[in-house]
Amino acid sequence: MRIVLFGTGNMATRLGIALQAKTAEIVQVYGRNDYKASLLADRLGCTYTTSLKEINTTAELYLLAVSDEAITAVASSIPAGNRLIVHTAGSVDLAVLSPFSINYGVLYPLQTLSISREADFKQVPFCLEANNSTNLKKLKNLAELLSEKVVSISSEQRRQLHLAAVFVCNFVNHFYAIGERIVGEKQLDFGLLKPLILETALKVQEHSPQTVQTGPAVRGNRTIMDRHLKMLSEHPDWQELYALISDNIKNNHQ
Amino acid sequence: MRIVLFGTGNMATRLGIALQAKTAEIVQVYGRNDYKASLLADRLGCTYTTSLKEINTTAELYLLAVSDEAITAVASSIPAGNRLIVHTAGSVDLAVLSPFSINYGVLYPLQTLSISREADFKQVPFCLEANNSTNLKKLKNLAELLSEKVVSISSEQRRQLHLAAVFVCNFVNHFYAIGERIVGEKQLDFGLLKPLILETALKVQEHSPQTVQTGPAVRGNRTIMDRHLKMLSEHPDWQELYALISDNIKNNHQ
Repeated sequence: MRIVLFGTGNMATRLGIALQAKTAEIVQVYGRNDYKASLLADRLGCTYTTSLKEINTTAELYLLAVSDEAITAVASSIPAGNRLIVHTAGSVDLAVLSPFSINYGVLYPLQTLSISREADFKQVPFCLEANNSTNLKKLKNLAELLSEKVVSISSEQRRQLHLAAVFVCNFVNHFYAIGERIVGEKQLDFGLLKPLILETALKVQEHSPQTVQTGPAVRGNRTIMDRHLKMLSEHPDWQELYALISDNIKNNHQ
Repeated sequence: MRIVLFGTGNMATRLGIALQAKTAEIVQVYGRNDYKASLLADRLGCTYTTSLKEINTTAELYLLAVSDEAITAVASSIPAGNRLIVHTAGSVDLAVLSPFSINYGVLYPLQTLSISREADFKQVPFCLEANNSTNLKKLKNLAELLSEKVVSISSEQRRQLHLAAVFVCNFVNHFYAIGERIVGEKQLDFGLLKPLILETALKVQEHSPQTVQTGPAVRGNRTIMDRHLKMLSEHPDWQELYALISDNIKNNHQ
């Protein structure tokens, strides 16, 4: 399948590299930034352009791995004829692509991706949606090159997944960052927390998180919680978080 | 080293099983609850008692893996003579043991432990403290039976580590639980989030969390954040958390 890839960020880079390693063929990269587009094109061994007027018109799939805000602008400029246009965003409806082609869909890999970190997509859920079953089948064939977990879900479900992902990934990572700063304040190494971080994530691969909650809040240990709040007195924002989440945990386990 | 183990919870169970598998010898378990004490004694192949008056008086180490509140009460009842008394708590000072023996210390494995889940202590930091170097050396020898990461830290540092652990483990697990409920509301399986949860934890094994923050808050994507807040309208507590943490992330990355 001949693909034009739009975007040069985390999603475009990791998807592009993974697809290029399989039988899919990225024929062109589009990016606004010349340097970034050339870098990614180099990695993929294909051509690139910074002009929407120079998009390859013979590809079979136009894959938009651009920011949410850019999706419609880019889609409207593609000389797609009636070829397949697909976006990769968690929170953008399928329907936004309907003005631009009679063939369109969504391919959303539910994972945190980084340009600088290799991605193994094999266990990553690929959430697909398309305007008809033929296009869905095409996307399924493509996604199955990369992953064993390909699912078909609605735009509403995808939005919900994305919201959940903010809690279990973005907010969680922020808490790792707070942990790093807390130990750093007493000259302790963040490395001490790493086995705990990993085990906490491994535990819920097998158990429901609701059933394995530990810590002072679920035990109702007011003495420890009060001391922790006091220790956070120089960080009123973390103090507020600590109090709010502890209450939340307590209420959730009553 | 002949040990009397106090407690029958997560810490006592996992430490007891791990030590018994090595050359340490648990000779007796103490627990208030007859059934729980007998269960653990069975697993360890040793005797048990529910009476502090029946504690074995010939052990070399009295290991208190009981709740924070119970530490001094139990310690005061041990016929320890001048034998080594050690607690395993993150937020309890070494000094609380000083009235009960001239030999005392702390052995704190920084990990989330469950009775029902096997623990591999090899990579787990064992944080030690003792009232003198002889006792510290004894604890070091014991801890090194189980782990490659044995460190000596102060009570103040241990308290700080425990506070950080609440953020990176207890609060994180609560967010996994929120994620589970969010996807469940749209008939989606929590399994879809598991690869994301694992990758988020794996990523910070190699990178500083501060440098790999992703999501709408760090990108300043107000449209998505407003929509997410709206989607949470039936959960005002999660809505409040979402707004607070997003602000926090934004401020942290300005």
